[in-house]
Amino acid sequence: MSNRENADVLIVGAGPAALFAIFQLGIYGFRCHLVDRLDRAGGQCAVLYPDKPIYDVPGFPETCGGALTELLMRQAAPCEPRFTLGRAAVELACEADGTWEVGLDDGTRLRAGGVILATGIGMFDIPPGGAVEAAELVPGPAAQWPLERSRGGIRVDPATFETARKGLFAIGDACDYPGKLKLILSGFHEAALATQQMRRHLSGGKRSSVEYSTTSRRVRQRLGRD
Amino acid sequence: MSNRENADVLIVGAGPAALFAIFQLGIYGFRCHLVDRLDRAGGQCAVLYPDKPIYDVPGFPETCGGALTELLMRQAAPCEPRFTLGRAAVELACEADGTWEVGLDDGTRLRAGGVILATGIGMFDIPPGGAVEAAELVPGPAAQWPLERSRGGIRVDPATFETARKGLFAIGDACDYPGKLKLILSGFHEAALATQQMRRHLSGGKRSSVEYSTTSRRVRQRLGRD
Repeated sequence: MSNRENADVLIVGAGPAALFAIFQLGIYGFRCHLVDRLDRAGGQCAVLYPDKPIYDVPGFPETCGGALTELLMRQAAPCEPRFTLGRAAVELACEADGTWEVGLDDGTRLRAGGVILATGIGMFDIPPGGAVEAAELVPGPAAQWPLERSRGGIRVDPATFETARKGLFAIGDACDYPGKLKLILSGFHEAALATQQMRRHLSGGKRSSVEYSTTSRRVRQRLGRD
Repeated sequence: MSNRENADVLIVGAGPAALFAIFQLGIYGFRCHLVDRLDRAGGQCAVLYPDKPIYDVPGFPETCGGALTELLMRQAAPCEPRFTLGRAAVELACEADGTWEVGLDDGTRLRAGGVILATGIGMFDIPPGGAVEAAELVPGPAAQWPLERSRGGIRVDPATFETARKGLFAIGDACDYPGKLKLILSGFHEAALATQQMRRHLSGGKRSSVEYSTTSRRVRQRLGRD
């Protein structure tokens, strides 16, 4: 990997909400790059308890973290995500031109038009340690700002899942808003709504209509289905 | 069926959001009764286009209305829902004691502690006609109140999915709030958050902690899994 990589959207975390965000952004033509300190995609439940039964994912009378991750990866595949696994994001900066830069623990710097924090509950007690909570990412020199905390999460606007910083979003267990439940299914909803605001952000504020896979040929073509 | 039936929660509509609400309420021990003017469960997509591919349900690279409905019904089954199909809800009233009563087009009256409107886009052009939009339900004599409209839906608090009336909720395509997307996956999230507020409503305002199927033995027992 080169020392600087660009993507439309940088996602910190690779759990269920992050994986579904690839799909949601992908149907509008955006490419995502995911970073996770764990060595595989799927987040906490897939990595720590891959075979433990889960009963509350809608449409799955019973599944488990491993199986759900595989399905989400397959659903995201046509959107051609890139992954950097086993590396922690340790720095986050907004550049003068409005783009974002994320620094990894090996010195790699990744740049994107927008960033989604999808770091789950944030701290995993897993070797090799060095875990950094999303809200404790070190703001880079170009940014003088805090992430607003709320009940252990990052406060977001529940209409957009944007934080107080333009182009910086939080979804899944990392975010908080009135009524928030730490359910996988809520992470999917949060990814979908964040996508609409990310579209506006990446297009300089332009509002575009929502496209549905059942009615939009362009969406189906991006998924290789038409 | 007797002329008056009681359930904990009455759900008007039987589409994906309604079916998942059965499960969400059921894991806390609440029984649901669903009413739909269509003659089968599953809502518009399952009844009108049961075999049309759907690509954007999380965890399903491809599904269709018929298959998704079957899975949601199977997931809800341990919660023992009751269904009244092929009948339209035409009247909605809040009684003096705070319980709700829904009148059907055949004169049946159903009573419950709370009501969830999950009527989809509301108007289907399907024989035998007589379609009634959710927001056009006739308030019963005990109720002097309007449902607040918003962009063709019913305005709800997105933290609770409660309408302006205590104990009356709206989820799925029938509801509106800032950022609302008419996606099946959002209906699932709405059902989960509405459930928490419904629990408080049915227990007279008491707050109880969220229970997860992965950690709560009581939840697994209610699902027949432990």
